[in-house]
Amino acid sequence: MTYQADGVPVTVAARAPGRGGEPVVGMVGAGQLARMTCQAAIGLGIGFRVLAANAGDSAAQVCAGTSVADYRNGADLLAFAAGCDVVTFDHEQVPRAQLAALERAGVAVRPGPGALHLAQDKRAMRERLGGLGIACPRFATVASSGDITGFAAVSGWPVVLKAVSGGYDGRGVWVCATAGEAADVLAHAREHGLELIAEEHVAFERELAALVARSPAGQGAAYPVVQTVQRDGICHEVLAPAPGLPAGRRAEAQRLALRIAAELGVTGLLAVELFETADGLLVNELAMRPHNCGHWTIEGSTTSQFEQHLRAVLNLPLGATGLAGRNAVMVNVLGGDDPDLHDRLIHVMAADPGVKVHLYGKLVRPGRKVGHVTVVGDDIAQIGDRARRAASYLSVGTEQP
Amino acid sequence: MTYQADGVPVTVAARAPGRGGEPVVGMVGAGQLARMTCQAAIGLGIGFRVLAANAGDSAAQVCAGTSVADYRNGADLLAFAAGCDVVTFDHEQVPRAQLAALERAGVAVRPGPGALHLAQDKRAMRERLGGLGIACPRFATVASSGDITGFAAVSGWPVVLKAVSGGYDGRGVWVCATAGEAADVLAHAREHGLELIAEEHVAFERELAALVARSPAGQGAAYPVVQTVQRDGICHEVLAPAPGLPAGRRAEAQRLALRIAAELGVTGLLAVELFETADGLLVNELAMRPHNCGHWTIEGSTTSQFEQHLRAVLNLPLGATGLAGRNAVMVNVLGGDDPDLHDRLIHVMAADPGVKVHLYGKLVRPGRKVGHVTVVGDDIAQIGDRARRAASYLSVGTEQP
Repeated sequence: MTYQADGVPVTVAARAPGRGGEPVVGMVGAGQLARMTCQAAIGLGIGFRVLAANAGDSAAQVCAGTSVADYRNGADLLAFAAGCDVVTFDHEQVPRAQLAALERAGVAVRPGPGALHLAQDKRAMRERLGGLGIACPRFATVASSGDITGFAAVSGWPVVLKAVSGGYDGRGVWVCATAGEAADVLAHAREHGLELIAEEHVAFERELAALVARSPAGQGAAYPVVQTVQRDGICHEVLAPAPGLPAGRRAEAQRLALRIAAELGVTGLLAVELFETADGLLVNELAMRPHNCGHWTIEGSTTSQFEQHLRAVLNLPLGATGLAGRNAVMVNVLGGDDPDLHDRLIHVMAADPGVKVHLYGKLVRPGRKVGHVTVVGDDIAQIGDRARRAASYLSVGTEQP
Repeated sequence: MTYQADGVPVTVAARAPGRGGEPVVGMVGAGQLARMTCQAAIGLGIGFRVLAANAGDSAAQVCAGTSVADYRNGADLLAFAAGCDVVTFDHEQVPRAQLAALERAGVAVRPGPGALHLAQDKRAMRERLGGLGIACPRFATVASSGDITGFAAVSGWPVVLKAVSGGYDGRGVWVCATAGEAADVLAHAREHGLELIAEEHVAFERELAALVARSPAGQGAAYPVVQTVQRDGICHEVLAPAPGLPAGRRAEAQRLALRIAAELGVTGLLAVELFETADGLLVNELAMRPHNCGHWTIEGSTTSQFEQHLRAVLNLPLGATGLAGRNAVMVNVLGGDDPDLHDRLIHVMAADPGVKVHLYGKLVRPGRKVGHVTVVGDDIAQIGDRARRAASYLSVGTEQP
């Protein structure tokens, strides 16, 4: 069968139809991203399965199609993929060799191993983006402490050291003020078998994120560009759309993300984290999956990022990405001292009947992302205050809402 | 613990806490209402279980906490309830004696058997509402064909005959133009052991619905009043808010529904289906659960009816019920000739990226509710056209979008 995407006819491969012809998407990993994708799949009537490391994982608690297996094991992955029309990911941890083996076995892997590799390997990503002429922070490969001091002689201190792979949410990133600090990080990295790159410490004005979707047919769709606020390397809050962003800069960020998605052959979502500087935009990180910078889309956009990811990996026509009328602010809920999140939820609901709370079913540990809140409204300052107050009460346990 | 509801302190019973203190709601029945409630429970981090008649039921396909058992069997119900903090319902079919037995066993049954009985038994509902002085269509109990002709002598033909219990979506309702037709229906009813009531055929201007929530603490919340359009006794479309409804009439409908919820001791949602006539509002039907007239709230209101039902039955503070900024139109998708709904979905997505499609995972049978579509926007005529076109293409299979 065929449909039109941006005026171009697209052919969708024939499938063995389910009850109502619905395809099955399998997501490797069962964190909160898979949990929220599960909600979207229920709405679309799409079959949805997750491969969970543990039965208690966030998505495994709620998804009827849960397999508990080891995503690093090729046989486990193949067995999981056998029941799915498309395999996609909640995280970047599946080894490249296993991804390639899945693809060789004829599995539709989306995003494909070639693209996903660039979200897994920061050095490869920097080299590839550099080759495309896309502005990024200056970087250098690091084999010795001399490489770091040599880089610092050009870019100045502090220097940012990053693990080439495996880091996320601030893990695997060290901001080093001196050569001594850098030498300590390098020693630590060698001890743990980590490769490093060095990056300049960018004096940005603020951080932005451009979230786009791209389907195998090549259809692209860009969400409004948002401002992200990080704390300790973890996304803390997202303002949608980015306040005061000139239309030209917004369009530049969207075009940049759509171009990266197309050049890298991404299928599904691509989140491009950006530094906005006095000299323009620099690409900080890439993620090829639903991303924290897009949680606001559940209430704030016509199509949530989770539904959009499903549509994209299934080669379905993409959904409208506009604001659902108004601004949105999303604030993460980090675990505090109180393990009883539900008890705290009651107070937040009583204090603000309009706040949307999302809890992930995760055990509360200090600093762990256990949920998020979103408030939609006209006045971004006011909705930001409401979202921060609700998240703070759920997170910390010391502040009255 | 306690919280404030409308300024009144409310005490929530102590529970055995889950991982994060979250309670477990069990829903008897696993149709599309349970399926959409499951999506809401995932967001809130609430434990959610369904008691399904069959493993292939709409909600059973997607809910990780599914038990397949017989809702008419007391032992099955008790076993299901043992794992839940609160038991609620996707349909009105659980026998009253079993509900009472659950309550005697200490189960929190919401709505309680006393209230639910009035959604199960149209004669009891009419008598109770009449006792409260609430305007309803004229009605009479029917023991013989003489009762029908005697009623018609006062109210005129046609006469509406309704099964006292067990009817829904147009089943169990017969509009009889003549005494001969009425006699045929009475014979049919006797053959199937159905009791009947007779009601006047109301010459309404349009149908409205007032959806409210009420918690055990007595907190109430009313959604905007909607217009419903029925076809063959099945809800076909919902316009939110009801176009051109004067503020006084809207407030009257909301107050009426809140009063019925309070007088009847409803916990959870109450949908009041109304006839708007030249002489004012008449109550047509009651439902004490999420209802087709509230599906638009998923995208169109700050709090979806499914989340609101969970909040109400758990005695949590209720959520904001306002429009999420704009109008919404919901149109049901009825099964047509083509079993491959997914194939049709692709065309609808390509034709209108802003339409929100909900499919229920049900086998397509002609006339069966298999999904719904919602469009949110400023111009109710335009969004109505878009929603009807999408639903028509999914439903009938003969009309190009």
